[in-house]
Amino acid sequence: MNAIADVQSSPDQRNMPINRVGIKDLHLPLAVRSADGVQHTVARLTMTVYLPPEQKGTHMSRFVALMEGQTEPVDAPRLRTLTAEMVALLQSHAGRIEMRFPFFRTKSAPVSGIRSTLDYQVCLSGEIDAGSYCHTLEVLVPVTSLCPCSKEISQYGAHNQRSHVTVRIACNEQVDIEEVIDLVENQASCQLYGLLKRPDEKFVTEQAYDNPKFVEDMVRDIATALKADPRIGAFRVESENFESIHNHSAYAVIEYP
Amino acid sequence: MNAIADVQSSPDQRNMPINRVGIKDLHLPLAVRSADGVQHTVARLTMTVYLPPEQKGTHMSRFVALMEGQTEPVDAPRLRTLTAEMVALLQSHAGRIEMRFPFFRTKSAPVSGIRSTLDYQVCLSGEIDAGSYCHTLEVLVPVTSLCPCSKEISQYGAHNQRSHVTVRIACNEQVDIEEVIDLVENQASCQLYGLLKRPDEKFVTEQAYDNPKFVEDMVRDIATALKADPRIGAFRVESENFESIHNHSAYAVIEYP
Amino acid sequence: MNAIADVQSSPDQRNMPINRVGIKDLHLPLAVRSADGVQHTVARLTMTVYLPPEQKGTHMSRFVALMEGQTEPVDAPRLRTLTAEMVALLQSHAGRIEMRFPFFRTKSAPVSGIRSTLDYQVCLSGEIDAGSYCHTLEVLVPVTSLCPCSKEISQYGAHNQRSHVTVRIACNEQVDIEEVIDLVENQASCQLYGLLKRPDEKFVTEQAYDNPKFVEDMVRDIATALKADPRIGAFRVESENFESIHNHSAYAVIEYP
Amino acid sequence: MNAIADVQSSPDQRNMPINRVGIKDLHLPLAVRSADGVQHTVARLTMTVYLPPEQKGTHMSRFVALMEGQTEPVDAPRLRTLTAEMVALLQSHAGRIEMRFPFFRTKSAPVSGIRSTLDYQVCLSGEIDAGSYCHTLEVLVPVTSLCPCSKEISQYGAHNQRSHVTVRIACNEQVDIEEVIDLVENQASCQLYGLLKRPDEKFVTEQAYDNPKFVEDMVRDIATALKADPRIGAFRVESENFESIHNHSAYAVIEYP
Repeated sequence: MNAIADVQSSPDQRNMPINRVGIKDLHLPLAVRSADGVQHTVARLTMTVYLPPEQKGTHMSRFVALMEGQTEPVDAPRLRTLTAEMVALLQSHAGRIEMRFPFFRTKSAPVSGIRSTLDYQVCLSGEIDAGSYCHTLEVLVPVTSLCPCSKEISQYGAHNQRSHVTVRIACNEQVDIEEVIDLVENQASCQLYGLLKRPDEKFVTEQAYDNPKFVEDMVRDIATALKADPRIGAFRVESENFESIHNHSAYAVIEYP
Repeated sequence: MNAIADVQSSPDQRNMPINRVGIKDLHLPLAVRSADGVQHTVARLTMTVYLPPEQKGTHMSRFVALMEGQTEPVDAPRLRTLTAEMVALLQSHAGRIEMRFPFFRTKSAPVSGIRSTLDYQVCLSGEIDAGSYCHTLEVLVPVTSLCPCSKEISQYGAHNQRSHVTVRIACNEQVDIEEVIDLVENQASCQLYGLLKRPDEKFVTEQAYDNPKFVEDMVRDIATALKADPRIGAFRVESENFESIHNHSAYAVIEYP
Repeated sequence: MNAIADVQSSPDQRNMPINRVGIKDLHLPLAVRSADGVQHTVARLTMTVYLPPEQKGTHMSRFVALMEGQTEPVDAPRLRTLTAEMVALLQSHAGRIEMRFPFFRTKSAPVSGIRSTLDYQVCLSGEIDAGSYCHTLEVLVPVTSLCPCSKEISQYGAHNQRSHVTVRIACNEQVDIEEVIDLVENQASCQLYGLLKRPDEKFVTEQAYDNPKFVEDMVRDIATALKADPRIGAFRVESENFESIHNHSAYAVIEYP
Repeated sequence: MNAIADVQSSPDQRNMPINRVGIKDLHLPLAVRSADGVQHTVARLTMTVYLPPEQKGTHMSRFVALMEGQTEPVDAPRLRTLTAEMVALLQSHAGRIEMRFPFFRTKSAPVSGIRSTLDYQVCLSGEIDAGSYCHTLEVLVPVTSLCPCSKEISQYGAHNQRSHVTVRIACNEQVDIEEVIDLVENQASCQLYGLLKRPDEKFVTEQAYDNPKFVEDMVRDIATALKADPRIGAFRVESENFESIHNHSAYAVIEYP
């Protein structure tokens, strides 16, 4: 096997570093550890490192090998370790791992208390750059938004719809996925549930009507709550409302700082 | 160039006909002619023919060449001609062309009359099989649905959301895309608009509240209207409601006959 | 709570049965049992029943409740039980459950033997109709295809690409997901791996070149193998080749009988 | 109509500016002017403005009204005007318009000269921020990549695949969409065509084999060409290779400066 040429390791003359090179959309089962315990899900991974100008190519198979050898549930400390291992394995000094996966939570309906599962889209990323490590947590939380203008100007009813609120935070201390979900769901016109009995449906209908929010209100109220948390250094909050009266979305984003 | 082998034309020994073979997802600009005139859009095309057991391969480039040579606006008669030309060109006796494209209509807001554009997804298909030709028209119409149960049990408000109603019809006589859109929009809790002034928003909010429909009502009312049209031989109507209180859809389909 | 109106249970006057009504795209974690054992994945579920003309609406929450109460790993017998339970719970006589999920397999590289995971898209469906039960298994297997024409006419090289082969079978007896995967991978120009060392990469490159297949060959060879299996009553095999020399796909489908 | 409350215009107390608020995924037909002339396509638009802390909401309908009133073909100067008009209309001092659309070009096959159409994904964006205007052009160019390692270590053949190269440039002077396409296609292992005759297929197969490129080579060679163009102030070049031997992508990105 030594006789097989190693093209990637040959020198490169173009004097052009590559910011990030690696693999994208590797699909793997993944155990995730969060506040509520360990859950089994499936992830799409993007793993990249910095490539210095003098090196022709990176070693793509090492990214996959690293993940194949990893069996522990992933949480923030574990991702930090994996990112450091990847950068060392690829003989680089900078790199990033992104893990995107559906995350599930059991919720209790607001009146009947009946329990059901709701799904959220999460992206964890760990990055080493210029000698320091940064952990980012992104959560897409689906909620109900109800339009204050429609409520105000109409004799009855108000248009409402499903909205996707996406919060991304860079945190030095531990912030759990569940905490971000709670924070967003508390600021929505109403939160979603997998299973609602009729008394629950009455409750969520009236709660949304009692609690109208523009897309602007949603991102402002969530941003206010995020700013109040000393563990969160920087954040981005985005809401896309799939307007029930249009075929386009209302959209807002706040980035801080 | 004659010396280049024609592998596709060699005989095949497996005794296995292929129902449909050709190309998928060819992207092209397309002019479409409908009741309101000719509009420019972009299409994704799937073009296939039956391949008899004795033939090793079809001639993929001929599908593309046929479309490259076609410059007329497409309507039902033009699609019929194209389908016949394709089947002849590929030396087959059966084949199908599917053209998927966004279709745009100018609508007037219900109170202010202000005009704006709404987009619909359309699929035209022409098929020759067993000596006869079948034209199919499929239109996805986005609408508002408002839940009768939520309205009935709640003191105020009612959950509503964007819904996708997809109607597919096989028609011997001409049925225009605009007719299908009108038929669906007339049966929804309310139709969508690109642009609404405040008096319009009040109108659509109240209209949806006055006109609640389950996903079952939507498909039944549309099916009833379709059955009443003697030009329509067979149809399929499907509604997917992106529930504003859940993270899944309510869904119903009626196929006739 | 008894005072809350049950709108769905009221009678309907339109005399229009609904072929399928229920929920779509419910996301849940799912344990799947197959030949290699039990694996944890995540599923998107569509669950529908027939609704008779006299009934206004189905009971959407019962679909979700059924799945929330289900904790056993899913295999063909378990899906059959679930389908029967759903139809009984919704007081219907016909219904269908579709479960779509990524399925993972550990594979050994062809020369080094190094092990890695590959992902496949699977759809299991169980349907009760007219008193009989039908189980359907659909597997999307990603493979390499290499063009025989390109190889034949070129002095060196041959264009190749990733292809998606989708096999759907209706089976009376048990056919495992792994069996369908093996059958497809054995007929491709070459199979895919998550992790390949250089000797493996040499092997798969040469194997694909030694084993060129048109999209027509792929579906014919797979159909031939499926026809030879007495457990399989009916099937559909489809291949989409994401041509590396075009921006559209080559596509073929065989349906049997 | 004057009696209808204008909720959006009421003052806001949260002291929280919104970086971008507006509409997302508005679908419209669009005429685009580029080097080869004017073409008709369809666009998805995202239009946002900065909202100061004291203002409760933006006026969503004005974004749509601006585009409904716009009939001229869009090019860089026209987008600049539209962006300025939007910011003025929404009484803001900062804002961005993004227009995503398929762009079509007629190409001649390399040997036969036969002409056909190829599609590219383009995003034009115009942004006003802190008193200055920035125009960005992004083009996704699909190409063929052929692996140098696979070629080197194998006795015959080499794995190749479709790749998506995405170039985004910020330019003070006019750079045409066609120029970016040419630049990328010239650096690929081979470019794609809608229609190839057999002599053409022989040509592209051999050209790709003669011109192997890692994902690293692709982004480096394109970045080198972009750096040499004095009109381009900053750029980002990204390549995703849909590996024909794996079920994940090889991926690289260079950002400059």
